[in-house]
Amino acid sequence: MQLYAKPLQRLIDLLECLPGIGPKSAQRLALHLLRLPPEQVDNLVSAMQDVRTRVRQCAICYNYAESDHCPVCDDPTRDRTLITLISDVRDLMALENAGDYRGLYHVLGGLLSPMDGIGPEQLRVRELLRRLEDGMVREVILATNPTVEGDATALYLARLIKPLGVRVTRIALGLPVGGDLDYADQLTILRALEGRTAM
Amino acid sequence: MQLYAKPLQRLIDLLECLPGIGPKSAQRLALHLLRLPPEQVDNLVSAMQDVRTRVRQCAICYNYAESDHCPVCDDPTRDRTLITLISDVRDLMALENAGDYRGLYHVLGGLLSPMDGIGPEQLRVRELLRRLEDGMVREVILATNPTVEGDATALYLARLIKPLGVRVTRIALGLPVGGDLDYADQLTILRALEGRTAM
Repeated sequence: MQLYAKPLQRLIDLLECLPGIGPKSAQRLALHLLRLPPEQVDNLVSAMQDVRTRVRQCAICYNYAESDHCPVCDDPTRDRTLITLISDVRDLMALENAGDYRGLYHVLGGLLSPMDGIGPEQLRVRELLRRLEDGMVREVILATNPTVEGDATALYLARLIKPLGVRVTRIALGLPVGGDLDYADQLTILRALEGRTAM
Repeated sequence: MQLYAKPLQRLIDLLECLPGIGPKSAQRLALHLLRLPPEQVDNLVSAMQDVRTRVRQCAICYNYAESDHCPVCDDPTRDRTLITLISDVRDLMALENAGDYRGLYHVLGGLLSPMDGIGPEQLRVRELLRRLEDGMVREVILATNPTVEGDATALYLARLIKPLGVRVTRIALGLPVGGDLDYADQLTILRALEGRTAM
């Protein structure tokens, strides 16, 4: 039986397709939207439409931007000799929120995954190499996730970039701050030992 | 510093105001919406607008409906002598999904909460009593949540309804199916003992 009024059911179904939203959340959200003052729904609707028409990709690093260049690439105080490579814009946010990094970024747009048909041509590898051409960049930090795909992608890129005379580094692997040796997995402990630094 | 393009940041901020959506989910949803094919965003937008213009409240039970009466009240096979009182439409769905209930509902629209200024006038108490006037209804099941407010509301309504000669019942309290006596809280165990039934 159709329990909800049809338009409500349709909204619930569409909300359920969004990432991280299950049946219960979709129901809760739909009922919330139904009760929201009209101007707040209008705000949300216009924001959803604006984002599509007004946001494009930065021509340099492929972060999202309102103009040709994103706020990071536009910032004159940034160190232009340092590029951190990340797979997704969300990783850029995580690094920026950590607060201390002052270089630029390059959003790869994914990770190598031959099984899914994602090779270097599907990613922004060529665009990265073009940014290294003028010799301005001293170092590329490979900050892909420490997963099988992330490691493979980092390895692949390191082999491409090193011959250009640019320093290539990988973010450190080890125990998270506040972590517990006793609860850490074997691989993390091995990497933490391998990556030990002099005190 | 402004990290995201302004329209993106605005969308994230608005999504964060929705219930159950934290900063991380809002970011994830906004980036997802940005990447979604235009027609899917249009679908979602039209569903959000439709729900506001096309959904109203059932004139009988205050469930959401597309016409004057909701699908439950419109269903001729429903037992019209039985009304289950619930505080919110979501509770109606939970009861319907359980599957076996064939009576009608009455959505109260909240619970008594003098601290928040919610008295009987702010709820649909008068509307409930009006439904009982013609003497058709044999029983009202009070299915408010077993919380302080839910119990107080049920008690209040029971006192109002009983003099009308209508049977008033309260949903059972006890261990949830599949539950564990060892892990149940004291109050639940006490209520389960009080509510014991003959075998």
